Amino acid sequence: FNNKLLNMPHSSFLTFMLLLIQLSVASGGKILVFPLDGSHWVNMKVIVEELHARGHEITVLRPSDSWYIKEKSPLYTSVTLPCRGGFEENFGVYLSRQLEIRLQIKPGSFWSNIWAHMQMRWVLLDQFFQFHKKVGDVITHMFENEDLMQSLEAAKYDLVLTDPGIGGGAMLARKLQLPLVFNVRWTIQGEAHFLIAPSPLSYIPFTATELTDKMTFPQRLKNVLSYFVGMFILSYMSEPAYKPIVNRFFGPDVDYSTFFLDADIWLMRNDFVFEFPRPTVPNVVYMGGFQCKPSKSLPADLEEFVQSSGDHGIVVMTLGTLVSNLPQDVSEEIAAAFAQLPQKVIWRYVGQKPNNLGNNTLLVKWLPQNNLLGHPKTRVFITHGGTNGVQEAIYHGVPVIGLPLFYDQPDNLSRVKVKGAAVIVDIAMLDRHIFKDALMTVIYNSTFGDNMRTLSKLHRDQPVKPLDQAVFWIEYVIRHKGARHLQTRAHKMSWFVYNSVDVFTALLAAVLLVTIILIAVVRFLWRKIFTGRKMKQQ
Amino acid sequence: FNNKLLNMPHSSFLTFMLLLIQLSVASGGKILVFPLDGSHWVNMKVIVEELHARGHEITVLRPSDSWYIKEKSPLYTSVTLPCRGGFEENFGVYLSRQLEIRLQIKPGSFWSNIWAHMQMRWVLLDQFFQFHKKVGDVITHMFENEDLMQSLEAAKYDLVLTDPGIGGGAMLARKLQLPLVFNVRWTIQGEAHFLIAPSPLSYIPFTATELTDKMTFPQRLKNVLSYFVGMFILSYMSEPAYKPIVNRFFGPDVDYSTFFLDADIWLMRNDFVFEFPRPTVPNVVYMGGFQCKPSKSLPADLEEFVQSSGDHGIVVMTLGTLVSNLPQDVSEEIAAAFAQLPQKVIWRYVGQKPNNLGNNTLLVKWLPQNNLLGHPKTRVFITHGGTNGVQEAIYHGVPVIGLPLFYDQPDNLSRVKVKGAAVIVDIAMLDRHIFKDALMTVIYNSTFGDNMRTLSKLHRDQPVKPLDQAVFWIEYVIRHKGARHLQTRAHKMSWFVYNSVDVFTALLAAVLLVTIILIAVVRFLWRKIFTGRKMKQQ
Repeated sequence: FNNKLLNMPHSSFLTFMLLLIQLSVASGGKILVFPLDGSHWVNMKVIVEELHARGHEITVLRPSDSWYIKEKSPLYTSVTLPCRGGFEENFGVYLSRQLEIRLQIKPGSFWSNIWAHMQMRWVLLDQFFQFHKKVGDVITHMFENEDLMQSLEAAKYDLVLTDPGIGGGAMLARKLQLPLVFNVRWTIQGEAHFLIAPSPLSYIPFTATELTDKMTFPQRLKNVLSYFVGMFILSYMSEPAYKPIVNRFFGPDVDYSTFFLDADIWLMRNDFVFEFPRPTVPNVVYMGGFQCKPSKSLPADLEEFVQSSGDHGIVVMTLGTLVSNLPQDVSEEIAAAFAQLPQKVIWRYVGQKPNNLGNNTLLVKWLPQNNLLGHPKTRVFITHGGTNGVQEAIYHGVPVIGLPLFYDQPDNLSRVKVKGAAVIVDIAMLDRHIFKDALMTVIYNSTFGDNMRTLSKLHRDQPVKPLDQAVFWIEYVIRHKGARHLQTRAHKMSWFVYNSVDVFTALLAAVLLVTIILIAVVRFLWRKIFTGRKMKQQ
Repeated sequence: FNNKLLNMPHSSFLTFMLLLIQLSVASGGKILVFPLDGSHWVNMKVIVEELHARGHEITVLRPSDSWYIKEKSPLYTSVTLPCRGGFEENFGVYLSRQLEIRLQIKPGSFWSNIWAHMQMRWVLLDQFFQFHKKVGDVITHMFENEDLMQSLEAAKYDLVLTDPGIGGGAMLARKLQLPLVFNVRWTIQGEAHFLIAPSPLSYIPFTATELTDKMTFPQRLKNVLSYFVGMFILSYMSEPAYKPIVNRFFGPDVDYSTFFLDADIWLMRNDFVFEFPRPTVPNVVYMGGFQCKPSKSLPADLEEFVQSSGDHGIVVMTLGTLVSNLPQDVSEEIAAAFAQLPQKVIWRYVGQKPNNLGNNTLLVKWLPQNNLLGHPKTRVFITHGGTNGVQEAIYHGVPVIGLPLFYDQPDNLSRVKVKGAAVIVDIAMLDRHIFKDALMTVIYNSTFGDNMRTLSKLHRDQPVKPLDQAVFWIEYVIRHKGARHLQTRAHKMSWFVYNSVDVFTALLAAVLLVTIILIAVVRFLWRKIFTGRKMKQQ
């Protein structure tokens, strides 16, 4: 308390305190956030901002080498967990290596690129393994720090909000016996639905297959095989990192995957305008596009550049925050294609300026993506296919040219492509002709724009806005101290019982037994009659 | 137009007409309703009222002998379909017979009551079969009436709203190529989820089993067997009634069950405060308790009676509109138990007045159920367990004593019982002592009331009110001319493909082939070595 406050007349001070108490009772919850760094934090921050605006008190646990999560913020109090650091540099190294391999994968069958695919898997596996090991260290430090754990317990939070792309938040919630809410699209076991909802592999494409919900027999075969390979790889990279921690802090009999099934509510960064319709469960809340918002006006110079495009309109290109520069030859092909367009182009580009850059192309180090996508002059959005970018293109109804690189990008873009709102260009095959063709198609064939505007209309037509939906369910968990009544019992069953293997085995055994008895009786009677006849004949 | 309107100045008249046109364009859709009669219409009418209030134009198709659906209404235009009539009387006969059998079923195992259970099934089967045959006649008349069909087509409705407890609405929607919205809990194939969402029998109790989502091995066995028996019976009673119609008007290759899978949106009279959490699909919208509303004040004399109960409060009993009178001996046992209470009792009762009626008990021919349930003096609600009554008890937080008779009543009540908010009394075993015990337990053990109030809080805590939710999705279908993008592809697949039987067979065959080849190679090598040695030895 500052002096002014202490010098207040007694009654005013009391009123002030009562008001404070009332406020904290009426609207304020205490929320402990264990986020995942990088682009995942960009999403989490949107929710943190909204929760802060509604009067909740937020504590964020961050690693000491955090990339995006600032120590000081007006939105939250942070607690820094020590870790070895170097994540950002490591990530950069992995990323360059992945891009290098990606450029070797030519279109065509899986088998013709098997070596590159295997290398890609290997790098990914190594990257994820290193990443989860680092996260594991952070979690171990957290649980070992008894003072910290005691203070977290004493703070009496209402819930833990976390991203299950890492296991720390879910473990912390169980340790502190707090309700658990996920901001999720991926758990460390893969796409979140596969952990929680029935996912028939006959029409639910597995992660990174680029398949749709309409599959031929070979595609369904591929999907089933991908599922088993994927599950094996995912367990290989997450189990060694988390199992020792779980054994140490929760006991040897606890399966680390059960922590994820504790969640009261899964706020899913997804919806069925973007995703194929599929089975779901009652504690999943869809909030796809929750970060989207109406565009604001552009800075004067950018607006002038946009307006100079006249009726031709503009092209917006960015490959996200991760891939800032492409190989020089690829960039030059892209620049050459752009130079042939009547449109103006705004290109987020950090590397060496392409030699053949057209007068119509503006290179920028950063661009106001949302305000450009919402601009009426924008004709097409060229993106690597990150979830945020694709969701924002849907929100603003701007058709897409996709240059997918890795992770979930090919899957994200194939979902928009199959709805007729995107053209995908293979970056390994990209030249000025292919790229210009793609541009001309999306800009001048109106069906792409029409389809994307239809998706936009559907996406915007919801009874509750996605972000309000998300905050409603977080506050719901605070109000009711959890939402366990929305969890299905499937989690608590072995696959054996869940699939009624025992029941069907028993029924089959009963049918067999009855059949055997029947056969025995028939044979017995047959022999009786037969022997009788034989005796008569003799 | 009345004279006043015709005498208006020209410009005013034009403005008025423009306003009318604008209004009808802005908010008015044209909705064709094919309802199911009886208690289902009570529900449908709530939605029709709301749609009417929001400016939609509604046409209701009703059978000429309709029980509840009036020909003239300010809410809708009706089209009457000819039918033989006599439904109400028939229904009464079936009902008495069912009640008679029900009173013979004593608590205990299924097997000790096997004869009564079989009789009950038989009566139910016969009743449903007769009912569907009658509905079938109505549908045939409708499709045969070319003038009617042409006028329905010419009217250019925006959608068909129907109850899939009968097949007419879904068939009509396909015939007229209109979007289809269900107001549903049951289709003619049973509980609606079983037709549309994955329903693992290991934790999803089948209809009329009174099981929960937590089952022992014998219970799971019972559930699986009940499912197969139930599906057989349901197909037996609906297929003969609908198959000939489908063959005649849609062609011989069309399966009648596919009509139900056409639905764009399933407005489900259910939610997960009442129902066990289970898998669902994106085009199911839960609107359980959509008919519930705050209570209004009681008529003066009833309010006076209620107030005269003092702190003891009141007991409200009704067995719904179908069962108006119980056997005299059962009524007298109930009356005797009531007479011993310090509470006042309001009992909806139509039969002969019990001899031993207490001074504290008021018999009424009709009671304002919602206003009584919402009254702060109400301590317990005695109900047969119809969906509406149970939902209203949840809404108002009033604990329940259930006297389930048949249909979905036992299941409805077992769901509230397992949540600790109801006591179920077997009507075949009911005497004054058992009934009084139940009353004392629910009135004086506060956990029942507490649990029901918790359910009430959860039920009322939704981002959108159930009825608004329902209307939103109906208008959504109007705005977007359907919602096919929310239908999963599961409907379009055979069970064979859906369950990946072909893929797993192929994989198994591949594994077998590899194994056989391996064995052959090993045997070949073994023989080579073995023969070689033998030769050496010789």
